Order: sequence, then C-alpha cells, then structure tokens
Amino acid sequence: MSPRASASAAAETRSGIIDAAVRQASLEGLESVTIGRLAGSLEMSKAGVIGPFGTKERIQLAALESAIEIFRRKVWSPASEAEPGLSRLEAITEAWLDYLTGEVFPGGCFLTGAAAEFDGRPGEVRDAVDRTLRLWEGVLEHEAEVAVEKGELPAETDPGQIAFEIHAIAQGVNQARQLRDDPRARERGATAFRRILNADGAVSPSSR
Amino acid sequence: MSPRASASAAAETRSGIIDAAVRQASLEGLESVTIGRLAGSLEMSKAGVIGPFGTKERIQLAALESAIEIFRRKVWSPASEAEPGLSRLEAITEAWLDYLTGEVFPGGCFLTGAAAEFDGRPGEVRDAVDRTLRLWEGVLEHEAEVAVEKGELPAETDPGQIAFEIHAIAQGVNQARQLRDDPRARERGATAFRRILNADGAVSPSSR
Repeated sequence: MSPRASASAAAETRSGIIDAAVRQASLEGLESVTIGRLAGSLEMSKAGVIGPFGTKERIQLAALESAIEIFRRKVWSPASEAEPGLSRLEAITEAWLDYLTGEVFPGGCFLTGAAAEFDGRPGEVRDAVDRTLRLWEGVLEHEAEVAVEKGELPAETDPGQIAFEIHAIAQGVNQARQLRDDPRARERGATAFRRILNADGAVSPSSR
Repeated sequence: MSPRASASAAAETRSGIIDAAVRQASLEGLESVTIGRLAGSLEMSKAGVIGPFGTKERIQLAALESAIEIFRRKVWSPASEAEPGLSRLEAITEAWLDYLTGEVFPGGCFLTGAAAEFDGRPGEVRDAVDRTLRLWEGVLEHEAEVAVEKGELPAETDPGQIAFEIHAIAQGVNQARQLRDDPRARERGATAFRRILNADGAVSPSSR
C-alpha cells in the first residue's frame, strides 16, 4: 500500500470506530462504549480499536464531537439561513423538533443523554458536554437579543430566559419521545415554542 | 439471635444496600450500580449484597422505588396540603424547585437521570421509570384540570400541555443545576413556572 492509501484506510477505520461508538452511546450511554464492545461489534481486535485513539476517553470525546457535528448539520445549518432574530429562532425550534422526533440517533438526543450521564462524573467528557451546551444556549440567547433589538420581541424580554426555556422544552420533547414514544411530543413542543416566542407570551415583567 | 432480631437485622442490611445503591446511581447512573461496587463500598461480600435481592436488576428497582419515595415525601407530600387546583400546582412547582436545587440527591433528580439512561434499554427498570413519570404527569394534568374547572386557568387551557411544560422546565432546571451548577437555575425555573401558570400566559388558542 502507498502511504497515501494507507493514510486513507486509517482514516476510514477511525471513522468506522467513531460511527459505531456514536450508535452504541446513543442507545446505552457513552459509558457503555468500551473497547471490548466496539471490538466485538466491528469484528476487530481490541488493539485495532484503541490504536487510532490511545484511550477509551478519547474515543468517547471523538463520538461526542461527531454527534455535535450531526446536530450542527441538522439544526444549525438550515436555521442559519433564516434572517437573524425571531425568524431564525423559529427556524431553530422547527429544525430541532425534526431532529428530536426524527430518527437521527436511535436513542434520542445524544447531548441530552450525555449531559444526564456525565453531570456527576468530572472529567474531559463532562467539560466538553458542558461547553457545547453553554455555546448552544449562547446562540439562542444571542438570537433572542437580536429579536429584541429588531422589536420582534418586547423590550423587557430576558434573552437568557428565552434560551433557558427553549432548551428545557427540547429536553421535555426528547424524554417524551424516547421514554414514552409519545406521538404528541412534537406538537407539545411546537405549542410550547410558539408560546415562548409569541410576543404576547414572551417573558416580560408585565406578563408576570 | 431471636428470629425477630434476625429479621430486623436483615431489613437493616437490605435498606443499607438500597441507600448505597441510590447514592451510587444518583452520581453515575443506575447501570453503575454493580454487585462488586456495592460490596466494595459496604465492605460486604458479593453474596451478602445479592442475597436479599436475587439479581442486580432487583437492586436497581429497589433503588428506584426508594428514590420515588423520597420524591413523594419532598415534593408531593407538602404540596398535597395546598388547595386542589392552581394553589396546589404552585405548591408543587415550589417544592419541586427546592428538591431540584437542594441537596436531596448528590447527582440531581434520580428519575430524570434514570429516564435518560434507560430510554434505550428495554426492561423492567425502563418500564418502572416510564410508569412513574406518566403517573406524575397525570397528577399535574389533573390539578390543571381542577384549576380550569375552578376558573383559575382559562377555559381553553390544555391541561396535558401544562403538565408537559412544567415537567420539561423541571428537566431544564435539573440540567442547569447539575451540569453547570448554574446559580440562576432556580430563578429561571420559577420565572418559567409563573409564566406557565399565569392565566394571561396560559396555553390557550387566544394566546397563540
């Protein structure tokens, strides 16, 4: 094999391992991703699985990164084409509902699962999950700020509150869909999002 | 030892094992509760740990039952003293925020964690979590119905939507508190609950 062919084969092996890790983690959690199980499902040796990464934690982090990339592609990319502000927030909630109630991951939102799993386990995985969710709430908050600046949401709106509530509703939709296979999960989420983003219902001192 | 003393010692051993399982599960998930780890932390033999239960799954189910009892005592018991309807819903959300942001479980809401962990793992534990959360949403929905009947919430209110949104916000508070140690988690939750239960902001066709 030429060096180039060998490098591309190595990249393929690496990405095959990551895909298997993402599938496994989506169903049973990141901690269920072990070298032994990956070796079994990929029909590889344990040394072959660990080789491209070095440690189990690095495989978990690579799986997380791959799941974040999928979320970015499914939710952020389509929504970022909408006008900044309220339109973009609406596009985000729409794409997020598609993502949560579609078949993107067999076991539901990867990040929500990882957050519940790692909130009590200090380490690099927990830090990466935390950083990613903060970043995402920051995006939501920024779009809410723009919506306020454009007068699409009332001036008294608290953009951080909007971001918190949208994110919480997404977690509720994910649980209703995954645990209960609730056929109304999408509709429940859509109704809640409409209310959060509806100027009349938006968070303001006057509506308290 | 008399038979009575021996029965009481056995009950004590059993409840000691369950307490250790609840602590362990709260931090790292129910699947991290293994006979070996319990034996290690309790300085018991593996046979002594498994004896009163028979299987690891029965220990997990007993831990779940114990966590449900704690939730019932911390959230439902105080709230059930309030008048049925809106007052009781307000008392529930108040007690729930105390529970979520207090130090009841070292690793946050036990049931939310178990739901995320077991949604992709069919079996008795998943079924028990599902049943419990349905029951709880049923309680919330019933109180919202009473509030509508009493005219405390608008006639067009969808009680199931109120139950879904309250539960989703609780999940958001739990994640903000556990993953991020967000000092504003309680306030964010309280603001969202006020909005959900505020007649002006309540779910109704006219507010969409």
